[in-house]
Amino acid sequence: MNYGMIFRIVGRVVGIEAAVMLVPVAVSYIYGESIKGFLVAIMLALIVSVMLMTVKKPSNKMIFSKEGFASVAASWVVISLIGAVPFVVEGAIPNYIDALFETISGFTTTGSTILTDIESMGRGLLFWRSLTHWIGGMGILVLMMAIIPMVEQYSMYIMRAEVPGPVAGKLVPKVQDSSKILYIIYVALTVLETIMLLLGKMPLYDAVIHAFGTAGTGGFSIKNESIGYYNSAYIEIVIGIFMALFGINFNLYFFMVLRKFKLAFRNEELYTYLGVMLFSMVTIALNIRRMYDGFGLALRRAFFQVCSIMSTTGYSTADFDKWPQYSRILILMLMFSGACAGSTAGGMKLSRIIVLLHAAQSEIKRLLRPKSYNPVMLDRQKVDQATITSTMVYFFLYMFTIAIVSILLSFDNFNAETTITSVITCLSNVGPGLSLIGPSGNFAMFSWHSKLLLSLCMLFGRLEIFPMLMLFSPYTWKRSSKF
Amino acid sequence: MNYGMIFRIVGRVVGIEAAVMLVPVAVSYIYGESIKGFLVAIMLALIVSVMLMTVKKPSNKMIFSKEGFASVAASWVVISLIGAVPFVVEGAIPNYIDALFETISGFTTTGSTILTDIESMGRGLLFWRSLTHWIGGMGILVLMMAIIPMVEQYSMYIMRAEVPGPVAGKLVPKVQDSSKILYIIYVALTVLETIMLLLGKMPLYDAVIHAFGTAGTGGFSIKNESIGYYNSAYIEIVIGIFMALFGINFNLYFFMVLRKFKLAFRNEELYTYLGVMLFSMVTIALNIRRMYDGFGLALRRAFFQVCSIMSTTGYSTADFDKWPQYSRILILMLMFSGACAGSTAGGMKLSRIIVLLHAAQSEIKRLLRPKSYNPVMLDRQKVDQATITSTMVYFFLYMFTIAIVSILLSFDNFNAETTITSVITCLSNVGPGLSLIGPSGNFAMFSWHSKLLLSLCMLFGRLEIFPMLMLFSPYTWKRSSKF
Repeated sequence: MNYGMIFRIVGRVVGIEAAVMLVPVAVSYIYGESIKGFLVAIMLALIVSVMLMTVKKPSNKMIFSKEGFASVAASWVVISLIGAVPFVVEGAIPNYIDALFETISGFTTTGSTILTDIESMGRGLLFWRSLTHWIGGMGILVLMMAIIPMVEQYSMYIMRAEVPGPVAGKLVPKVQDSSKILYIIYVALTVLETIMLLLGKMPLYDAVIHAFGTAGTGGFSIKNESIGYYNSAYIEIVIGIFMALFGINFNLYFFMVLRKFKLAFRNEELYTYLGVMLFSMVTIALNIRRMYDGFGLALRRAFFQVCSIMSTTGYSTADFDKWPQYSRILILMLMFSGACAGSTAGGMKLSRIIVLLHAAQSEIKRLLRPKSYNPVMLDRQKVDQATITSTMVYFFLYMFTIAIVSILLSFDNFNAETTITSVITCLSNVGPGLSLIGPSGNFAMFSWHSKLLLSLCMLFGRLEIFPMLMLFSPYTWKRSSKF
Repeated sequence: MNYGMIFRIVGRVVGIEAAVMLVPVAVSYIYGESIKGFLVAIMLALIVSVMLMTVKKPSNKMIFSKEGFASVAASWVVISLIGAVPFVVEGAIPNYIDALFETISGFTTTGSTILTDIESMGRGLLFWRSLTHWIGGMGILVLMMAIIPMVEQYSMYIMRAEVPGPVAGKLVPKVQDSSKILYIIYVALTVLETIMLLLGKMPLYDAVIHAFGTAGTGGFSIKNESIGYYNSAYIEIVIGIFMALFGINFNLYFFMVLRKFKLAFRNEELYTYLGVMLFSMVTIALNIRRMYDGFGLALRRAFFQVCSIMSTTGYSTADFDKWPQYSRILILMLMFSGACAGSTAGGMKLSRIIVLLHAAQSEIKRLLRPKSYNPVMLDRQKVDQATITSTMVYFFLYMFTIAIVSILLSFDNFNAETTITSVITCLSNVGPGLSLIGPSGNFAMFSWHSKLLLSLCMLFGRLEIFPMLMLFSPYTWKRSSKF
């Protein structure tokens, strides 16, 4: 294990966090709010960064898979620990565990909150809270790689560990260029959404905040009623469309920029995404039509909620927990699936479900005709066995995590629906769940140990389980004679 | 596709069903009840049997994997359709869909009931209802193979399709001998339990009924309060122990008879089974201790319920739906896992979970050190890739079925807990679920289409998904140029 390189990478990431925090400092300054919290956090970040960068000089720059996983997992834990500091110092969230939950919920783009009255918080802190969504959405290590050049050969390991999906997509031969392109698309779409929201007469501050929340598919709002507060069809539709857009694989946008339309639209996951979205929207609208004034309004509410849940954003314009069971249960199932790989969305990712369905099909064929050859295909290409196994193991670990954490969470003795859906929504980085943690509820009532467990779930979900598992696995840290 | 052989096999199975129905005829006669229902069903069975055996003479006796799966799935559907007839003819369950649900619940050893007042039903019909558990537990095709000699080479395909577990265990080189041995162990254990219950002063009729329910891990009782009715520590403990015993792989009993103790006790699944059982028992007892008069009683209730749920029997001596959330959620998770492969229990089977956990471990090692060799081991033997893939696909299809059926069931608009746990309990062949279908509830309130869906789930669960899926797959019936 090359500890020196891990320390250096984490150190750099924390340095970037310190730099990023200058933005909310500026916001706080503009609104005449205290900047003490941010200054303390920045100081702390700089000290940690310098310490990590100097404590152990890397003997060589070689990193492999395990160093990649370890640096990504460790970076996310450390930036969360530091990112929570401003909330505590300013007294906005006095309890550190609560602040940590909120920060991890931000970085992982979950959007679950322990705040009971969001609107009472300062504007600088709220800005930081939403900025974590934006940073976490595309990934802070990807950001680091876009800024600081790294030995090409090794950066792929980090990319693979942070970018969601069964296969990390390098857009162009060089990882650094890929990172830059990803961030350029990301910034462009975020700016576009902000402008569209401004056109809908949303104040600039609110527009930026909600663009951050949408882009990262996070879901933190600055209003207790979330997007419902604005009560505007235009805003509802704009945010709905952008939520759907941020759930699409960014590679496809890149192909479109390059005018490689054939490549962009020969994508099974995209069609599945749009198909499931349309189906859910229409059937939910039919299911809830009697609760709203006309089918049009029901369709709008269904559209917004389906986009919000499938993209794992978590904004709401209606309390779907009060909807009939068909809508509630369908929404719950959509929380599992998530959107497309290579997007900022959470959940299992549709491409994994598609691979699993194809693998099931091929298994049935094999059982029927044991000697036949039935490769698993995706987008007209054969999926290799390693990817299939990895996908299956991921699916199993996802479900197993839900089972184990639900049991551990049950000691808080909230009803089963609350307990189990809180784990699902946190692991899938959605935000709200059903019952007590529905769109009008929050996570304040959980005990501190449950909050820590759910925070871990969010990190597990955002980094797609393996990096976090490896961080805790003795096998990772075991000194091997083979290396 | 060799339709002739499929028809012949299904015809034989239905013939055996007609013969088996003579037992409840005798019981009805003894208690002076009407035997009209059974006579109609027997007549029907004989007609169907003769028709199937003569309609298409098999041109050859060759059967392969797909004929094996198709005959097993078709047999189970046909015996259920006929087995439901007596309930309808006698007017005990006037609605045929209800009777079908009850019969499938019997054969699949689920034990979910649509009856609101069990005790009002005739003794002959109740006997038949419980006898279906016993027949379905070990399998009616296994019974057929034990009685009627078949071409050795082909009977393995049937065995594989009906006996639960990732790998069908042939105990001895000949399948017919294996079937006989399985049934001998099965009969011996059932008789032993009946005697033990008689020693506890349970009436003979009740003792046989409950031995049937335990042996098949079914769970139909003849009392509205299930085993709680007898209010006897002795009976509770005896049935508890036997439920646990019937959840153990029958191969192990065979090894013990052969005095191959080393083979019997070198079994990871057995230790996991006992370990999970003990852990669940003790922690649930601690969790519910305040609800009962002393820790001893709490432990007894926990012991009985854990044995009942893990073995997927479904008997109850307490309403676990009223227990605190830890116990409720743990019980829900135990419904998934089930007990050991090669037993009469349902659920996923622990060996599958163990294989998946080992596969996850090996995947993590592979990710950490991509070039290392990490075979998946079970009982000190390497598990081959085909079994691993098959297990993973099974796990995925299990979860996928739960998701899809839950959504379809939600149109009945019962609360999410009822809807989702009804699917889980039916697919895992347990019996009760949570909320409205808890130990004191029943399935009467569901619509006819939901009852059909749940019946299908029970068949899916008992036959372990693939045979039923194949029955509905166009690929199975497609005329292939290759064959």
